[in-house]
Amino acid sequence: MEYPSKLLTQVIDEIAKLPGIGKRTALRLALHLLKQPVEQSENLSQAILQFRTGIKHCRVCHNISDTEVCDICTDRSRNHNLVCVVEDVRDVMAIESTGEYRGVYHVLGGLISPIDGVGPSDLSIAALINRLAEEPVEEVVLALSATVDGDTTNFYLYRKITTLALPPKVSTIARGIGIGEELEYADEVTLARSILNRVPFEKSIKQQ
Amino acid sequence: MEYPSKLLTQVIDEIAKLPGIGKRTALRLALHLLKQPVEQSENLSQAILQFRTGIKHCRVCHNISDTEVCDICTDRSRNHNLVCVVEDVRDVMAIESTGEYRGVYHVLGGLISPIDGVGPSDLSIAALINRLAEEPVEEVVLALSATVDGDTTNFYLYRKITTLALPPKVSTIARGIGIGEELEYADEVTLARSILNRVPFEKSIKQQ
Repeated sequence: MEYPSKLLTQVIDEIAKLPGIGKRTALRLALHLLKQPVEQSENLSQAILQFRTGIKHCRVCHNISDTEVCDICTDRSRNHNLVCVVEDVRDVMAIESTGEYRGVYHVLGGLISPIDGVGPSDLSIAALINRLAEEPVEEVVLALSATVDGDTTNFYLYRKITTLALPPKVSTIARGIGIGEELEYADEVTLARSILNRVPFEKSIKQQ
Repeated sequence: MEYPSKLLTQVIDEIAKLPGIGKRTALRLALHLLKQPVEQSENLSQAILQFRTGIKHCRVCHNISDTEVCDICTDRSRNHNLVCVVEDVRDVMAIESTGEYRGVYHVLGGLISPIDGVGPSDLSIAALINRLAEEPVEEVVLALSATVDGDTTNFYLYRKITTLALPPKVSTIARGIGIGEELEYADEVTLARSILNRVPFEKSIKQQ
């Protein structure tokens, strides 16, 4: 489609580069900005630039942060011998919002995905192995998605970690039927796992 | 939800002000930008600012434009005695893409909507009436949406235009069954209109 203005064409092209946003939506967003005060566009423009150029990755856990070392890694009240490995910052936020985890994190920045051309060297895996070799970590919890890429990454990490001189314990988050989910609608693999990895009833009561 | 960085919080707040984009999507977009080269964010940021501060509205038809008077209004090969009244630039683009209209436009910039607090003075209606009083326009085509707001605006414009000293002819785009649409699924109002406003068969053949 042809737009009546070069500035409009330019802003639509740039907005439509974002994932899940097509040219039609980009046009709608641009026209929306035009109806709002100039300040809104100025703030949006500035926030994007400041975020992209100013954001840091925590030197320890590689989570995004405003400082060299993030708030979680500098929190001495947390258990630094327990490291939870996650894909990205969204998973950190999800686990933090449960309020149940008091260990620290390691953010991979993605998953190994041969199809998308993402290899171990594109992720912060070497940094994790170094960290485990240097710090007295007792347990690593692998909390990756239950997908092909997640499983591939799990196995790669497990092999790498167990070849360390003093390997920590490696665990993975429990798979099973979600709370409030109906048994009959669960897929076979999940249901099978939830039976194989059953927990003592007394323990499940205590967690409620 | 709490974000681990002020810069991230800021960019999410600004992106989520856009219509149809929530905080979760805003976070996904921000993390996407982080994985792309810095240049992409710089270009996006700059395009938004340049668009918002640099865009002009055509002095004649109020369509958005890079110049004082837009390309359509300066095109001498078009029929300047035929003015099509539309809601916004998207309608201009839609009609232009048919390649069948050779008149000029007048962009209202919205529709009269008492519920949303949009009155005639918020739109370029006074400018349209002035234009019709000064220029030798023969026909005005009202091409607004067939909604309550569209109808309200149609009636308001019709009353205003017919009180002019030398009022032009006022027409509205045809409503009816869309090409390729099945009769049985059309709503009653549309079907009734398409029968009342039937056209001679010879004429419909010529348009194919």
